[in-house]
Amino acid sequence: MARFSPTAPHLPRSLLLPRMTLPTKTLDVVGIGNAIVDVLVQADDAFLADHGLSKGTMALVDEAQAERLYASVGPGLETSGGSAANTLAGIAQLGGRAAFIGRVRNDQLGGIFSHDIRAVGAQFDTPAANDGPSTARCLILVTPDAQRTMCTYLGASVNLEPEDLDLDLVRQAHLLYLEGYLWDSEAAKRAFIAAAEVMRSSGGQVALSLSDAFCVDRHRDSFQELVDGHVDVLFANESEICSLYQTDSFDAAAEQVRGRCRVAALTRSEQGSLVLHGDEAFPIAPFRLGELVDTTGAGDLYAAGFLYGYTRGEDLARCGRLGSLCAGQVVTQLGPRPHSSLKELVAAHLG
Amino acid sequence: MARFSPTAPHLPRSLLLPRMTLPTKTLDVVGIGNAIVDVLVQADDAFLADHGLSKGTMALVDEAQAERLYASVGPGLETSGGSAANTLAGIAQLGGRAAFIGRVRNDQLGGIFSHDIRAVGAQFDTPAANDGPSTARCLILVTPDAQRTMCTYLGASVNLEPEDLDLDLVRQAHLLYLEGYLWDSEAAKRAFIAAAEVMRSSGGQVALSLSDAFCVDRHRDSFQELVDGHVDVLFANESEICSLYQTDSFDAAAEQVRGRCRVAALTRSEQGSLVLHGDEAFPIAPFRLGELVDTTGAGDLYAAGFLYGYTRGEDLARCGRLGSLCAGQVVTQLGPRPHSSLKELVAAHLG
Repeated sequence: MARFSPTAPHLPRSLLLPRMTLPTKTLDVVGIGNAIVDVLVQADDAFLADHGLSKGTMALVDEAQAERLYASVGPGLETSGGSAANTLAGIAQLGGRAAFIGRVRNDQLGGIFSHDIRAVGAQFDTPAANDGPSTARCLILVTPDAQRTMCTYLGASVNLEPEDLDLDLVRQAHLLYLEGYLWDSEAAKRAFIAAAEVMRSSGGQVALSLSDAFCVDRHRDSFQELVDGHVDVLFANESEICSLYQTDSFDAAAEQVRGRCRVAALTRSEQGSLVLHGDEAFPIAPFRLGELVDTTGAGDLYAAGFLYGYTRGEDLARCGRLGSLCAGQVVTQLGPRPHSSLKELVAAHLG
Repeated sequence: MARFSPTAPHLPRSLLLPRMTLPTKTLDVVGIGNAIVDVLVQADDAFLADHGLSKGTMALVDEAQAERLYASVGPGLETSGGSAANTLAGIAQLGGRAAFIGRVRNDQLGGIFSHDIRAVGAQFDTPAANDGPSTARCLILVTPDAQRTMCTYLGASVNLEPEDLDLDLVRQAHLLYLEGYLWDSEAAKRAFIAAAEVMRSSGGQVALSLSDAFCVDRHRDSFQELVDGHVDVLFANESEICSLYQTDSFDAAAEQVRGRCRVAALTRSEQGSLVLHGDEAFPIAPFRLGELVDTTGAGDLYAAGFLYGYTRGEDLARCGRLGSLCAGQVVTQLGPRPHSSLKELVAAHLG
């Protein structure tokens, strides 16, 4: 099975040039995303229906809508979130060298976000905004079937501008990870493309998560272009990849994406995932580690495990199993940041 | 077994005066306490030792200490807390009519605290401070043995002054619940005594939780006087009641407290609790509802269950079982606010 390295794909590790002659890379992955604090609340299906929310998806709300919705829900549990941020935190927890770029406001929630991502060892140096909207919040409604439905107030996170990007940080990493959600902000999208170009020109790779089927729907053409032109590793779940290629058939969508990027990792909840590369396809079984509690962060942690393996040159099947294992852990708890040691989990299950 | 009512103790409910002739009481319990947001983090015994923290207790820290400590811990999970606030939230979740008095700042954490206590149906109308210290935070270090060790920055909560007290609210309740932690603030203590006097003169009862052995140690004389002169229902755990009467023997402490207040409910972790009233003693078995995860809120939820029964005129053994059941639930999850329905729990276990 092929072993991968972002600097020399398709070559077994033994054929790599000695480290000294490669560009100095001090990070495995740098990620750009919305810096968000999650508010987890319990809700039932009737609540989703009453508020016109579509289960399992993410809806954008403005501050007034966010406050009205918050006033109508039960008590919450607050935890740092944000899709790419969860992935970078997961990579750091696994022992990878990770940095996150995203914008908070200098308020209490911004303090929580900054603390939590640094506390797991990820680098996070984007200066907090001193004025403007408050730190982004995502109200996550967890239904009894453990599904999560999200309402996001983007707040300060949409004010990430290209000039905020620390391009040196991007150059220091083997891989740049981008969340599709950023496409909802014109400024963040520009920052995103600029970073992808810098990463490619510095010899690294670009990974993208499609984030949400509705998000794909809003930006389909743009995402298709991006996948064809800039993306090495694509993450998508079944509804996202089907939305990207406007088909109801997973198999048809999988055939469509083949060859458009180096690797596509397609997740299918309890059916596990499928990793595609050229003509190869690696079906990955899911890990069931306990009772299903809350699916928040499942996709983010899949990407974390996968990219941790990928940037270490692991074979693609093992990358998929690492992703599957991390996703399997996070769905057994509330919230998207693992409460138990991912390192120990990997040692126990994947040696 | 004796049935209790705050307005006519020792009389079976059938002998109570018709409701119409009693003073109009629209609330079961009003509580005064520190309004706190908890930050739950995982820690090991070595961390406690390195920071000079005594397991299972609460230490007060100033803002700078709180920030230094926060910077040294792992990622957190934020949830509304505060001892009396947890109890009042629990009473409301059980279906009791509950109000809380305590002070937050008008900041993001204050918004979270206010939302969460109102979201379970408790009344909370204390105006938020517009200036001064930020909303109180408690860093709760949860060790692998599920014990919690707390470091509290009291922030805005210590600025609760007697003039902030809504005495009409106090008069509307059958019972006033006070947390011993308030004794650490001179102003709050004065507010506390004023409220107790108003409650007594309006025909209601006063309950006190001793909160923490070190807190008892700081204010022993004052607490003894309070128990003898103002308290109808006393809640204490083993180390607190032993500290109050400066003895190593639980039995000796239990003998000391007998008759000094109407009812003493003494909790003993996995040994259950002992409810004392006059010459009677009711040993209450603990409920083991699942794996022990985090003992945060165990005492607070015991008081919630107990007072919910007590203000409904239930017999003392059932009050104890209600307390024991609610405490048994909260220790199976992270944080002091039950994530599952206490009403359903009572229906399932105590009919």
